[in-house]
Amino acid sequence: DSKLKIFTCNSNPKLASQIADYIGIPMGESHTTSFSDGEIQVKLSESVRGCHVYIVQSTCGPVNDNLMELLVMVDALKRASAKSINVVIPYYGYARQDRKARSRDPITAKLVANLIEKAGAHRVITMDLHAMQIQGFFDIPVDHLLGVPILAQYFRSKQIQNPVVVSPDHGGVVRARKLADFLNAPLAIIDKRRPEPNVSEVMNIIGNIEGKTAILIDDIIDTAGTIVLGANALMEGGVKEVYACCTHPVLSGPAHERLENSPIKEIIVTDTIPIRSDNPTSKLKVLSVAPLMGEAIIRVHEELSISKLFEIE
Amino acid sequence: DSKLKIFTCNSNPKLASQIADYIGIPMGESHTTSFSDGEIQVKLSESVRGCHVYIVQSTCGPVNDNLMELLVMVDALKRASAKSINVVIPYYGYARQDRKARSRDPITAKLVANLIEKAGAHRVITMDLHAMQIQGFFDIPVDHLLGVPILAQYFRSKQIQNPVVVSPDHGGVVRARKLADFLNAPLAIIDKRRPEPNVSEVMNIIGNIEGKTAILIDDIIDTAGTIVLGANALMEGGVKEVYACCTHPVLSGPAHERLENSPIKEIIVTDTIPIRSDNPTSKLKVLSVAPLMGEAIIRVHEELSISKLFEIE
Ligand SMILES: Nc1ncnc2c1ncn2[C@@H]1O[C@H](COP(=O)(O)O)[C@@H](O)[C@H]1O
Ligand SMILES: Nc1ncnc2c1ncn2[C@@H]1O[C@H](COP(=O)(O)O)[C@@H](O)[C@H]1O
Repeated sequence: DSKLKIFTCNSNPKLASQIADYIGIPMGESHTTSFSDGEIQVKLSESVRGCHVYIVQSTCGPVNDNLMELLVMVDALKRASAKSINVVIPYYGYARQDRKARSRDPITAKLVANLIEKAGAHRVITMDLHAMQIQGFFDIPVDHLLGVPILAQYFRSKQIQNPVVVSPDHGGVVRARKLADFLNAPLAIIDKRRPEPNVSEVMNIIGNIEGKTAILIDDIIDTAGTIVLGANALMEGGVKEVYACCTHPVLSGPAHERLENSPIKEIIVTDTIPIRSDNPTSKLKVLSVAPLMGEAIIRVHEELSISKLFEIE
Repeated sequence: DSKLKIFTCNSNPKLASQIADYIGIPMGESHTTSFSDGEIQVKLSESVRGCHVYIVQSTCGPVNDNLMELLVMVDALKRASAKSINVVIPYYGYARQDRKARSRDPITAKLVANLIEKAGAHRVITMDLHAMQIQGFFDIPVDHLLGVPILAQYFRSKQIQNPVVVSPDHGGVVRARKLADFLNAPLAIIDKRRPEPNVSEVMNIIGNIEGKTAILIDDIIDTAGTIVLGANALMEGGVKEVYACCTHPVLSGPAHERLENSPIKEIIVTDTIPIRSDNPTSKLKVLSVAPLMGEAIIRVHEELSISKLFEIE
């Protein structure tokens, strides 16, 4: 049967090589660099003719560069006669532009899906899409992985006493419910309300949190505004301590400073987006998705169901 | 009949508003900015329902950002029910990746054409494509404008005595031939040859240049290596002085320094790519393509032939 090869561009080279290690194959040799004027240059240093190729590349920041690297790589592999081109996008950027929130908005998450398909991808493997509907933006198979089991395993190993899982808003309740189930913990929801127009929001907590250890969970922590406001409200509401976790640590703008100065004890994230090496936050704990991604690639390649990946022992 | 509107993103706002001025309409109101994490946000501040919309955006550096801005803008206009979406790309980036020069090369110029079409563009207006074949990468109409008449008009007004038009390589002879015709000047060609492998190139000049004023012409000046080597060879060959001109001043890396230290007297370029304001080269003379682009848009909108735009009085 056909050969499996893994390639990567510049978003997550470390994750990609950990995935290759997990699978037990060497990384495919390629070089994604720039010409003097900034145009991307992709060089494939080995044949891919007849191979099933997996490209590991997140569309995290610099988002347009990372997206274009992925597209040019797909183009190069297609023209080099790869048998199938499977794009592994641990973090799918532009996912928050998933609908016309205001009139005349673009729907960039759909545009990106179209671009990836048009470039020549045959399959997408991704993780914790901001909106599950983005799966339907593609006309090719999408395998959607979940970060919750990885986060749950960590909290289990910490043996946190008297936990309560908290969703920072109504949009995240389904995800929080899953973590609560894994941890056998109760659920609470932060319910933001604006009592009157131009009056600042009130953070109302639905659920019993007093004296408990709160675990805030979101899919993305970007500027960290939501999660830190949530943590403050929980502290005021009488929790003992607050942990925060997410799959995708975007951490842009004031995020590091806000997290550092917040009452959050530890922030547990995954490596779908690499943490910049000048990261000043000592509170971050990074869990690797490499075994999950590696297992998913093996199972996809062997045409096995991936649903058992979302269970934990 | 339907309304004509002009929009722009961030590559050439000045050129875009000069084009709108030429046509005699206000710029369409839109804002292309970034979210905190660097994702592009496009806001259309006026209705485009039923309008024929022209977006002016070069895919010069930062090329991936400028390309993505264009694509997101097309997406927004499409979803806002524009009647036709015409992309005006004064400088088409990635044009040099137009073929598999080495095995397993991507053909990014074709990828970009596919992305623009897939986003929803109905027509392309562009200028001096590095390879004319790129027109065929599109399945929508491409109107291809030429910079040579603009450059020729400038040299005519300078009344240069005893000129010779020089192509810096064999690939540019057709373009140089056109300029020579406009100026009623003879043609010369710089013929680079490597006498043996690993022996440095010899610059051989085909044509009579002695005592003449040379006008080097290329489509793109990027790192300025080719043009400066050419100018040096011409000086050694006995020309009186050297002018250089091109349509697209990419000017990356060492370009400014090389041009400054070269024997080139003046470098005539157009504004398809804006010159960075920290440009230290006093030798640059920038001619505007706004009247040409403006006239092309009017003629396309009125369904008239654009071929008369390539004549000069
Ligand atoms: N990169 C981004 N950073 C911040 N906000 C965004 C970004 N992309 C989209 N949005 C906005 O986030 C909202 C969607 O987020 P949500 O309601 O959580 O699905 C929309 O109003 C978007 O305009
Ligand atoms: N942005 C770029 N900067 C420099 N060289 C490039 C660029 N894009 C493509 N090329 C190379 O330029 C060559 C094509 O240029 P040309 O022979 O002038 O058509 C190919 O070998 C490409 O690999």
